[in-house]
Amino acid sequence: MIKNSTTDIEDLIALMAKLPGLGPRSARRAVLHLIRKRALLLTPLAETMSEVAATARECLNCGNVGTSDLCTICEDLTRANGELCVVEEVSDLWAIERAGVFKGRYHVLGGTLSALDAIGPEDLRIPRLVDRVQSEAIREVILALNATIDGQTTAHYIADQLHGQARLTSLAQGVPIGGELDYLDEGTITAALRARKDI
Amino acid sequence: MIKNSTTDIEDLIALMAKLPGLGPRSARRAVLHLIRKRALLLTPLAETMSEVAATARECLNCGNVGTSDLCTICEDLTRANGELCVVEEVSDLWAIERAGVFKGRYHVLGGTLSALDAIGPEDLRIPRLVDRVQSEAIREVILALNATIDGQTTAHYIADQLHGQARLTSLAQGVPIGGELDYLDEGTITAALRARKDI
Repeated sequence: MIKNSTTDIEDLIALMAKLPGLGPRSARRAVLHLIRKRALLLTPLAETMSEVAATARECLNCGNVGTSDLCTICEDLTRANGELCVVEEVSDLWAIERAGVFKGRYHVLGGTLSALDAIGPEDLRIPRLVDRVQSEAIREVILALNATIDGQTTAHYIADQLHGQARLTSLAQGVPIGGELDYLDEGTITAALRARKDI
Repeated sequence: MIKNSTTDIEDLIALMAKLPGLGPRSARRAVLHLIRKRALLLTPLAETMSEVAATARECLNCGNVGTSDLCTICEDLTRANGELCVVEEVSDLWAIERAGVFKGRYHVLGGTLSALDAIGPEDLRIPRLVDRVQSEAIREVILALNATIDGQTTAHYIADQLHGQARLTSLAQGVPIGGELDYLDEGTITAALRARKDI
């Protein structure tokens, strides 16, 4: 009975339930919250979404998300310092930007190599990466891929492709800032011990 | 730097992070997912949200959410069977409708009485409930409030107000279907024992 009457509301619940992290129950809760906060939240959200749907696009150069063909990082001449940070996903780029310490440019692969899922180099932006290293006079490529099997396999593949063309580095592995040894896995502790530093 | 470039995207993340159940991290994940599924998810979501923002309203009679002044349950003549189910929130009404067993009408209070938060009967829809019991020839009022202190206090207050005007009932308390005794609290087991039934 509710279905016939409030089709839009039911549709909205069904769409919200497709978001990562929301299921049917939390989608219903979110929709009731949205209806209650119509002016403050629902209307601005609808407008911003349709704005983003109209303007968001992938940077043709690096794969970052932006609102023009080239993202602002690629357009920013002060960031052309010869350093290129290779990440798996846009979310990784955002995470590094939040740290605010890297001043070069990025290259977003869009995933990792995976034999199981039949994802090869041409499915990622690896050929484009090889082009960029040559055309943008890159001195150092930082392979900031996830410390997973697939991430490390991809890093090794890229390192092979770029061998001799630039300095290749990876992120340091060790104890996270604020981390407690008791809660760390053996692999991390082993890596931290092996890469121990003089004080 | 990202902030200047992708203001709409940053705005969208900030708005999404205000939804119940989403924080900044899951909002970023959701927004990237939305941008990736633009045609399938982002555009329909933007359109449905602006539709709901334009049409959703509270039923003037019962407080349910719908798209006209009277919700379809209040407009449905076959549901005027003299039974009125009182719930705290619209989400409770939806939960009972999903069970599909109740064929009467609802009354959504919009919360519970609370001395701490200074919520009195006139802040809820209790005066309107008293009116409805008289004007709609209600025979039975089912107080389907949550089994919390505030819910039960509110139920007692309403029972006082409606005393003698209709049959007053509450939901049965006991072991949930599929529930395992080992995981139930003592209060539920006590209630289930006290209300035990002959087989």
